[in-house]
Amino acid sequence: MVKYPTITKTFVKDKTSSKNRGMAFEKLIDESNAFYRAQNKAVIHKKPVPVQIVNVDYPRREMAKITEAYYQTPSTTDYNGIYKGKYIDFDAKESSVATSFALKNIHPHQIDHLASIAKHGGIAFILIMFKKQDTVHLLPIEPLLTFVKRAEKGRKSITYEEVLTHGILVEQGYRPSIDYIKAIDQLIAR
Amino acid sequence: MVKYPTITKTFVKDKTSSKNRGMAFEKLIDESNAFYRAQNKAVIHKKPVPVQIVNVDYPRREMAKITEAYYQTPSTTDYNGIYKGKYIDFDAKESSVATSFALKNIHPHQIDHLASIAKHGGIAFILIMFKKQDTVHLLPIEPLLTFVKRAEKGRKSITYEEVLTHGILVEQGYRPSIDYIKAIDQLIAR
Repeated sequence: MVKYPTITKTFVKDKTSSKNRGMAFEKLIDESNAFYRAQNKAVIHKKPVPVQIVNVDYPRREMAKITEAYYQTPSTTDYNGIYKGKYIDFDAKESSVATSFALKNIHPHQIDHLASIAKHGGIAFILIMFKKQDTVHLLPIEPLLTFVKRAEKGRKSITYEEVLTHGILVEQGYRPSIDYIKAIDQLIAR
Repeated sequence: MVKYPTITKTFVKDKTSSKNRGMAFEKLIDESNAFYRAQNKAVIHKKPVPVQIVNVDYPRREMAKITEAYYQTPSTTDYNGIYKGKYIDFDAKESSVATSFALKNIHPHQIDHLASIAKHGGIAFILIMFKKQDTVHLLPIEPLLTFVKRAEKGRKSITYEEVLTHGILVEQGYRPSIDYIKAIDQLIAR
C-alpha cells in the first residue's frame, strides 16, 4: 500500500474561515450580535422581515394562525443598535462575483436611510461578503455614496480593489464569527 | 320649528386631542415618526411585527404568498432610531384604567432590553397612554426599573400619580400628534 504524504492540511486555509464558509452570511452576523450582547459589548439586533398580514385564522382561542401574508419591501436596513453610546445602522450584502460588487444589490431607499443616519451622527455602513474570496468588508456610507453617484453616469458596481481601498477588512473567527465591531473601532479612530 | 342653540362646541374639549382620541396609539406614533423624518428632526422607525414563516406558495413566479405563519414574541421593543446623535429606544403601551398602569403589560425581556440600552448610553423609556384621560407620558427606564423591583414584593402596577411624578407629560397636537421628541429634550436637559 502506497503511503501518501498527509499534505491535506497545507491546502486548508484559515481554519475558522473555512468553517464559516457556506453558512448564510446573515446567520453569522446574528451569531456575532448574540455574542456581542452576551459580552455586554453592544446591543445590535436584526429587524424582523416586514410582512403584510392579510388574513388570520384562530383554530384555537389562544392560537393565531396567519393564512395569507406577503413580503414587503423593507423601508430601512436590516440591523441597528447601540455601541459605545453610538447609534449603529447597517445592511449585509453578498457578492458571488470575485471582482466587483453590483450596486443594484442595494435598494435606493436603503442608501437614503444610511445617508440620513450619518447626517444625524450615527455610524452607517454596509457589510459586504465576497463569497469567492471569503472576505468581509465594512464599507462606510460616505464612499458608498460616491460610488452610487458615479453609477448615475458610469459603472454600476464597485470593484474589489475599491472595496479594499475604501472599506475596512472585517476579521473572521470563531466567536464572534464576523467581528465587525473591531472594524467599527477602526472607523471611529479614523 | 324649535331653534336649538348650537352649544355643541362648548362640549368639545381640546380639538386636536379629541381628534386623536380613538385612533390607535401606535398609528399616532407612526405618524409622528414620519413627521420627524420629513422634518429631518429624528430618524425613528417602528420595527416590523416578528412572524415565523412556515409555508410559502408561489402562485406566480414573481409573487410569494405566505400561507402559514405565526406571531412571535418580540425580543426587543417596537421603536428605535436616532435623535441628536443619540440612540433612542422605546415601547408604546396603553392603559384603559384611569388610576394605574399594570406592569404585566410589559414583557420582562423588554425591561431587560431597555435597561441594557440605558447602560450602553442610549435613551430608553416607555410611552404610556392613559385612554380615559387621553394623556401620554414618557416614563424613563430608571423609575420604571424601581417600580418593577417593587412589584416583586408589592403592588404590580404604577399609579397615575406616580406616572405624573416620575414621567414627562407628552404634548399632543396635530403635527406631530404625539410630540415625544419634546419630552426627550426635557429628559436630556435634566
